[in-house]
Amino acid sequence: MENQAKKYYDELHKLSYQAHLLSGVSSLISWDQETYMPEGAASIRAEQLQALSGIIHDAKTSKKFSTALSKLIDIPTGKINIKGLKKPEVAAVHAWHRDYSKEVALPKKFVEEFTKLTSEALIAWCHARKEDSFHTFAPYLDRIISMNREKAELLGYKEHPYDALLDCFEPNATTSEVDRLFTDLKNFLTPLIKKIGALKPADSSFLFGKFSPSKQMEFGKKILDSIGYDMRRGRLDLSSHPFSSASHPTDSRITTRIHPNSLMSNLSAVLHEGGHALYEMGLPAIHYGSPLCEAVSLGIHESQSRFFETRIGLSKPFWSYFLNPLKKTFKGPLENVSLDSFYKAINQVKPSLIRIEADEVTYNLHIILRFELEKALIEGSLKVRDIPDAWNAKMRELLGVTPKTNREGCLQDIHWSMGAFGYFPTYALGNIYASHLFLGFQQDHPDWETKVASGNLLFIKKWLNEHVYKYGRQFSSKELLEKATKHKLSSTAFIDYLSNKYKKMS
Amino acid sequence: MENQAKKYYDELHKLSYQAHLLSGVSSLISWDQETYMPEGAASIRAEQLQALSGIIHDAKTSKKFSTALSKLIDIPTGKINIKGLKKPEVAAVHAWHRDYSKEVALPKKFVEEFTKLTSEALIAWCHARKEDSFHTFAPYLDRIISMNREKAELLGYKEHPYDALLDCFEPNATTSEVDRLFTDLKNFLTPLIKKIGALKPADSSFLFGKFSPSKQMEFGKKILDSIGYDMRRGRLDLSSHPFSSASHPTDSRITTRIHPNSLMSNLSAVLHEGGHALYEMGLPAIHYGSPLCEAVSLGIHESQSRFFETRIGLSKPFWSYFLNPLKKTFKGPLENVSLDSFYKAINQVKPSLIRIEADEVTYNLHIILRFELEKALIEGSLKVRDIPDAWNAKMRELLGVTPKTNREGCLQDIHWSMGAFGYFPTYALGNIYASHLFLGFQQDHPDWETKVASGNLLFIKKWLNEHVYKYGRQFSSKELLEKATKHKLSSTAFIDYLSNKYKKMS
Repeated sequence: MENQAKKYYDELHKLSYQAHLLSGVSSLISWDQETYMPEGAASIRAEQLQALSGIIHDAKTSKKFSTALSKLIDIPTGKINIKGLKKPEVAAVHAWHRDYSKEVALPKKFVEEFTKLTSEALIAWCHARKEDSFHTFAPYLDRIISMNREKAELLGYKEHPYDALLDCFEPNATTSEVDRLFTDLKNFLTPLIKKIGALKPADSSFLFGKFSPSKQMEFGKKILDSIGYDMRRGRLDLSSHPFSSASHPTDSRITTRIHPNSLMSNLSAVLHEGGHALYEMGLPAIHYGSPLCEAVSLGIHESQSRFFETRIGLSKPFWSYFLNPLKKTFKGPLENVSLDSFYKAINQVKPSLIRIEADEVTYNLHIILRFELEKALIEGSLKVRDIPDAWNAKMRELLGVTPKTNREGCLQDIHWSMGAFGYFPTYALGNIYASHLFLGFQQDHPDWETKVASGNLLFIKKWLNEHVYKYGRQFSSKELLEKATKHKLSSTAFIDYLSNKYKKMS
Repeated sequence: MENQAKKYYDELHKLSYQAHLLSGVSSLISWDQETYMPEGAASIRAEQLQALSGIIHDAKTSKKFSTALSKLIDIPTGKINIKGLKKPEVAAVHAWHRDYSKEVALPKKFVEEFTKLTSEALIAWCHARKEDSFHTFAPYLDRIISMNREKAELLGYKEHPYDALLDCFEPNATTSEVDRLFTDLKNFLTPLIKKIGALKPADSSFLFGKFSPSKQMEFGKKILDSIGYDMRRGRLDLSSHPFSSASHPTDSRITTRIHPNSLMSNLSAVLHEGGHALYEMGLPAIHYGSPLCEAVSLGIHESQSRFFETRIGLSKPFWSYFLNPLKKTFKGPLENVSLDSFYKAINQVKPSLIRIEADEVTYNLHIILRFELEKALIEGSLKVRDIPDAWNAKMRELLGVTPKTNREGCLQDIHWSMGAFGYFPTYALGNIYASHLFLGFQQDHPDWETKVASGNLLFIKKWLNEHVYKYGRQFSSKELLEKATKHKLSSTAFIDYLSNKYKKMS
């Protein structure tokens, strides 16, 4: 009986493996699209990606696949059908079932229409952003929201239609739960930002100057090496927006952006994308093709990047080691900077208009704003034409700044034009998760500051491997986080971190 | 009735288009494999390529495809079924039929076994070459030859089993015809090489020295620009062996190899691969997905690369323009070289052991050697164990040199380990075709030397576009060559070219 279960499991795994190979190919040609593709190939590349995604969808919803799946689990109820599966295998079967149910819930016609709409919307958004003309994008956004509502109905939900959308990016997260986490955060952040705003800003002039791009690239590689990023299974390239892209644990690539006049943009990109990439490299390749070699969620993925970018890369111990090599590499305005001044400069908090340029404190309010608007748009309590006013009002309320144009307001992000409602919250969840995970990390490495200050960083990856990477999708986000820390998930760890950090700095 | 034909044609084109998109993806990830792929990804990349090739094979042999095809052509007899197709469309249908018949002639089991064998053979060849141990590779080669014989039987042929193999790379070419072309060539080349060998070798010391890799790369791009290579639809990168790879006319990439101590390797690679790439860029994108947007054959492809590499790039007019910029870029030992000395140095003829390092005269004898051995191996008149002796004897006979090891003899090329019997002849056919085409080019541009010497090279691409690129697979190699030149195909043009060139130099 046990052998039978394993046999069926292997059959399903084999089918899924083929689909994963093609998803990997798709990631790879998307990576190429952003790095080395000649501009003239844009249109054929879109067609290649679409052809692949059609084949992948067919493979994941084929009769063969559902037959194999139904030998292990009852598809309508989601109850395991067979005895003899091990615990991780049971979790994998549930994850397969979850994905399959989502794939089949959306009719092909709906998916095609949505793809067509968002590809047109993307062009309209680019144009609207350039011309600062929200009204030319509005009709597209209106249809995108309608289709997202329809999507929510097709996928189903218990409490709130936004739950269904959220669940596509952060499985099992609910609107009410995210609301709770975000409310705690907002209540804490708003006064904190006011308090920081009253302080004299730190000098950060030495972070700007002339920093040779090739030396920046070299320094980025040095940092990647120190955190355990393996260049035999990855690459560092340039692209206009930094990203990470993995087609397999043996091929997990990242990109960065180099400003010849600014130092931190590359360094934080390298740590951020490096954190994402270590997760993908650390997933157990032996389970490739199954959910046991997949990331849990976007939120957990983001927690891995923020762990390295903020909790490590913005920490004093990290720079107590790396400031000297940095000075040696770049000289110039950096030479006379003390560790303390450097630390203060890179941790400067300043409310601003653009999300992707925000510091680790204000960043979350940019996300909360988007979450609140998205929820209202999906509920229907906010109309598309009222977005600019609502956006600006919330910016004032949360951050005390007002965009002068929609370009630096509600038109700044690509996500809505891509149809991705429910995506934004995962960015702030990533911060909450990263700090929650850090509780466990600190418990196991009470001397982490001494270790990091010695330049020995490999123990971080090792800890994350033991508590995150190696499990794939065996646990839900919450289970994983609570298992790693023995603490119930809340915003507390993140709040405490920021609170202590900025108390010390004032 | 006419509309009906067009409707069926469009149906077939649409199915074929999907398969082409995936072939393009496959080219792209192969390109990545040779340029930017992290070494650790080798194994998953092989699996990705295999998965794609399976899907492409399935698409090309699907019931849907054969049904669509059979509405236009009778599959068993290859007779067009329907009225109303235009001439190029009729040619396309024949090409589709030809490809389909080949795809289905080889049973899936055979293809899988062959793939497995050659992937093992490739490893065995690498090892054997490294250790100079022909006997460890011999058993693999033996099985590869048996399977190639079986392949010939499965594909069918009229006169000689080698015809069937040749036909996979050079459609419609026959062993007897190639034999005729090669015999003429051999009879001419053997005495020519002896004659040249008796001359005092030209000084070529200035081609060796220190040549900055970045400047070499820059100069390569300048040359590519001058011949009309469009960087918005291509790229130049580095790889261990130069190659060209196109996934669509808007994405036709090339690579080169830079020796910091030697000048010509990069320049000839850039012209050679640039010639291949211009062909792919010039194919009519409007017919993409059909044979009307495909290259005629490997021989015609090679003729396009050799046209630029040898007929243009080794000509005096070309260097009468480019020698000055070359001197300005690199200075050093080049500065005092006259055009005449430079021309003689780059056209030096010297029998040597390694094919890929051979000059344009001796190169063809390397190919003829391989053709004669392949034919004998397929016939069974030569046994695998006797290859090293036969190889060395033929090297002495044709080129007057003897390899000291099999590594610089019969183990030097990768092709046999990949199972590619019938491939080598296309290299020499490429030379014959290039010179034959040049007849037509000269007729239309009697002043080509003046034009080239002025640095204006775009008219070359324009001519090739009118006579080669724009037709796709509308004509066979021979038809295309004879149409472009109004001369019957023979080795004469190539022989005359070499004969005149080296008469002048002696």
